[in-house]
Amino acid sequence: MDNFTLFNPTKILFGKGQLECMQQEIPAGAKVLILYGGGSVKRTGLLDRVKIALTSFDTVEFGGIEPNPEYETLMKAATLVRAEKFNFLLAVGGGSVIDGTKFIAAAAPFKGADPWMIPSQRAPISEAIPFGTVLTLPATGSEMNCGAVITRRSACMKLGFSSTLLYPRFSVLDPEFTFTLPERQTGNGIVDTFVHVTEQYLTYPDDALIQDRWAEGLLLTLIQEGPKALKSPQDYHARANLMWASTLALNGYIGAGVPLDGASHKIGHAITALYGIDHARTLAPVLPALLTVMKDEKRAKLLQYARRVWCLDCADEDAAIDEGILRTSAFFESVGVPVHLSAYHLGTEVVGRVLENLTRTGMTAIGENGTITPDKIEKILNIAL
Amino acid sequence: MDNFTLFNPTKILFGKGQLECMQQEIPAGAKVLILYGGGSVKRTGLLDRVKIALTSFDTVEFGGIEPNPEYETLMKAATLVRAEKFNFLLAVGGGSVIDGTKFIAAAAPFKGADPWMIPSQRAPISEAIPFGTVLTLPATGSEMNCGAVITRRSACMKLGFSSTLLYPRFSVLDPEFTFTLPERQTGNGIVDTFVHVTEQYLTYPDDALIQDRWAEGLLLTLIQEGPKALKSPQDYHARANLMWASTLALNGYIGAGVPLDGASHKIGHAITALYGIDHARTLAPVLPALLTVMKDEKRAKLLQYARRVWCLDCADEDAAIDEGILRTSAFFESVGVPVHLSAYHLGTEVVGRVLENLTRTGMTAIGENGTITPDKIEKILNIAL
Repeated sequence: MDNFTLFNPTKILFGKGQLECMQQEIPAGAKVLILYGGGSVKRTGLLDRVKIALTSFDTVEFGGIEPNPEYETLMKAATLVRAEKFNFLLAVGGGSVIDGTKFIAAAAPFKGADPWMIPSQRAPISEAIPFGTVLTLPATGSEMNCGAVITRRSACMKLGFSSTLLYPRFSVLDPEFTFTLPERQTGNGIVDTFVHVTEQYLTYPDDALIQDRWAEGLLLTLIQEGPKALKSPQDYHARANLMWASTLALNGYIGAGVPLDGASHKIGHAITALYGIDHARTLAPVLPALLTVMKDEKRAKLLQYARRVWCLDCADEDAAIDEGILRTSAFFESVGVPVHLSAYHLGTEVVGRVLENLTRTGMTAIGENGTITPDKIEKILNIAL
Repeated sequence: MDNFTLFNPTKILFGKGQLECMQQEIPAGAKVLILYGGGSVKRTGLLDRVKIALTSFDTVEFGGIEPNPEYETLMKAATLVRAEKFNFLLAVGGGSVIDGTKFIAAAAPFKGADPWMIPSQRAPISEAIPFGTVLTLPATGSEMNCGAVITRRSACMKLGFSSTLLYPRFSVLDPEFTFTLPERQTGNGIVDTFVHVTEQYLTYPDDALIQDRWAEGLLLTLIQEGPKALKSPQDYHARANLMWASTLALNGYIGAGVPLDGASHKIGHAITALYGIDHARTLAPVLPALLTVMKDEKRAKLLQYARRVWCLDCADEDAAIDEGILRTSAFFESVGVPVHLSAYHLGTEVVGRVLENLTRTGMTAIGENGTITPDKIEKILNIAL
């Protein structure tokens, strides 16, 4: 196990009716900007419930934060926060709204020349507006971490940033808020969570026995509960387990003291930046392809994965590894997420464009060992097509 | 899964050499009281290392905090803190020193008539001196939670208290600090951790799939690494996994949203209060006895435990459950902790005295269902003898 620092001060309010407890977590007298996305929170009535829960505060709404939140939209909100002196933000939505809110929280008080420096130059964040979240789409884990990814489509860039000042003060996780999710979003969330786990788990053995067991526990839960939630969208227990899995997949615990392979996400982000495909739908083709290409380096962990997660007989090691990868793809398909980029009518031109995008952002030696170089990325993309 | 609130702001500094990073976590100019136990931190040189790491602060030492920390000793420290205006505490030791420090942190600024009201009447804590910890004995999990247990021998009382103000600001977890632990302490820590996990896991099914998997992951790790650490005390990886297991066993995660059975600890605390036996050494006889007596209520989880933790064939359910309990006892014995109270020359008189002690402190309907009543406690104690 490697040395690590673990710090996660976000307070989780989990379960039915927790929304109404949220007001105790917001400083009295706060001026609150409520941020949301495309309007589903209006249709489902959640936004009204939020406003009722916050009647003792001065609130204003800001909607229209896109999936893969756009820099230009977020800057409009940041300008509003600064001009109107909002001192608390509340993100109501999924990872995009929460990530966008993190950027707004950092950009509004930013003293540098241009807040785009935060993701593009990793400009240090010395101040942030405090914020909470009400999660509607379990997927990114952003509700309990301090990282975010935003997009600047005009530059074809999708970039991340983080700061310990960007942990949500609280996150409301009510599984009932996910009952009305479209199948596509449910499936996407399951795949995104799955890949978050594998990127912290399918690397090389590092004597971190608990992190391994906990990662496997999340994967087994996704495999068991994912199909249930798709079949019975109002299955509270399935929704609760999926929601909690997505939060725990990226809140620092399973990644503490272990090697990290963020390559699937990096490649996926480039594909989304270029073609606007849902984040999870870029990961489903890339992960199995990456595991295939990196089989030798990841051999020991792929065997453990085959044995413990897929319960495969590992007498023939290569057959077990291949079967484990096949089952991964089959699981993604079973929750409605295609595992080939051709499902989005993308062809071989993807390879060069993604390589060019990754090269431009300096991502030419990625993965836990820095060995996923352009030649490997090319192979991965060709398998993913 | 039940509703829950999860909040744990303790910062963990895990690994070799982290002691030297600790100073960044203490407010500049703080006046620091360093608290420790019986002197092993002097013998090992750890106290000197701590003082060197804190040369930029004004520090004073207070040693002599006992195992099962004594109210009278802790009040001396609290009086010193108040008189000398210490504004940061540093606990260097195991659970007893850390629990004692939590009491001191709450007692020094306590405005009520008598700080004994904190454990005895659950008097609310409205203020606490901030503190950090340097862990030397992985066992209680106190380094990453906000609870504590202290003893007042004159009243034969061992009582707990908690407050969200009592999370350590940071905890340094360096596995090397545990290389010199006596076998007895290593074994005790393993058993204490094991029982913390089972008290959150061996209850009844509650559709909390992740909490179950994570609890099982901790148990499997203890079973795998415990004997290694006893055989090779300087096995860094074994020590690291045990240390991290003990912290994660009681930091809120595996207990979030699930039923809790604290009965083994409650019975054990009474035995310690009466006879001064090491905390873990009271648990090792009590847990298997309790599982035997409560087999019907805990049936579903005992089967899951037999299958997933001990890899037993569960075709004959009763045989599997019995074998799982037997293996639990055998594991405790294998790490050097006896599973019969007779090992401490205790006889049948224990039963009445423990029952009387529990009755006096209102613990007459304990366990996850409140069904561990005096008749059951009597059976448990008779088996534990």
